[in-house]
Amino acid sequence: MARPTAPRGLARQRVLDAALALFAEHGVHGSSLQMIADRVGVSKAAVYYQFRSKEEIALEVLRPSIDDMARVIRIAEVLPDMLRRREVLVSGLIEMVVRHRQLSVLFYGDPGIDQLVRDEPEFRVVTDRLQELLEGPQPCIADRIALRVFLSGVCRVAADPDMSDIGDSDLQRTLVELSARLLSPDHAGAPVS
Amino acid sequence: MARPTAPRGLARQRVLDAALALFAEHGVHGSSLQMIADRVGVSKAAVYYQFRSKEEIALEVLRPSIDDMARVIRIAEVLPDMLRRREVLVSGLIEMVVRHRQLSVLFYGDPGIDQLVRDEPEFRVVTDRLQELLEGPQPCIADRIALRVFLSGVCRVAADPDMSDIGDSDLQRTLVELSARLLSPDHAGAPVS
Repeated sequence: MARPTAPRGLARQRVLDAALALFAEHGVHGSSLQMIADRVGVSKAAVYYQFRSKEEIALEVLRPSIDDMARVIRIAEVLPDMLRRREVLVSGLIEMVVRHRQLSVLFYGDPGIDQLVRDEPEFRVVTDRLQELLEGPQPCIADRIALRVFLSGVCRVAADPDMSDIGDSDLQRTLVELSARLLSPDHAGAPVS
Repeated sequence: MARPTAPRGLARQRVLDAALALFAEHGVHGSSLQMIADRVGVSKAAVYYQFRSKEEIALEVLRPSIDDMARVIRIAEVLPDMLRRREVLVSGLIEMVVRHRQLSVLFYGDPGIDQLVRDEPEFRVVTDRLQELLEGPQPCIADRIALRVFLSGVCRVAADPDMSDIGDSDLQRTLVELSARLLSPDHAGAPVS
């Protein structure tokens, strides 16, 4: 063979990149292993050589972001009060979502992915802890609803094709401002600008 | 046959009800015609007798809500200023979403459905007009982002299984309050509570 074979790690990454693009466009349910293989330009068997299933690919696509989020949680959870913890978590979450705009629709809102994350203990620990820290010990109904509006809004907006003309830094700054308005100024004391 | 045959309209409605439950659980991409048929307890051929495709079913599931929204738009668009128009539209949208909580995830956020709505001229007219009225003539970046956070948040939260313990009236009231905080108090003058 004249062309050098790609090393294993590179082939793996090409599958993950192709899967990410397809998941963002069609959701996980709407993307097949065949579509992923076609996009990479390899056979389905070659993809199966790297991954056991589409679900395993989806979890691997998400893993670096879950690791990022775990790190932000470690930074935040030692801070002395809930308001500051939340500030760091919200800002860290928005930074992560904006850095992975294409991926962000997968964080919250795709029924297929939400289920995968719930079923993977390693991921579940991170998302449960994030929710616990953001909501505080005894969230009222308004706090709980505001937090979900924030999470779903941030994740969805970043990936929305109609928002693609808005630059990353404008998006990041605006989302931080909106989160301060949205997240419970009465209960957690976040400033209303 | 001993059992009376269901009239055509009833059989049609049973397919739509089954499809709605499956779409909410698995997304449109993740639900097949076979799954819909199984849930109704009929053959796939019987479903094909009523509908040409899964896409046609999805559009029919959405149609009553699109009609509701068109009516709210007709009520709002004759009001004299943008702030009052927006107030009615936001309140009307939230009322509709809460009334159809299970369906609401389909309004915004499912890539399969978003595409279907964009491709159906009759629906497109309603969603474009809604966006135009909510954004106003020259929306700034912050207004555009806030509107998307609001839409995606409202639609996603209403259908979130973790929110199912929150009653409809609490949910509706809280979402209206949150929308007033979120939607551009600086630009459209919505009061910050």
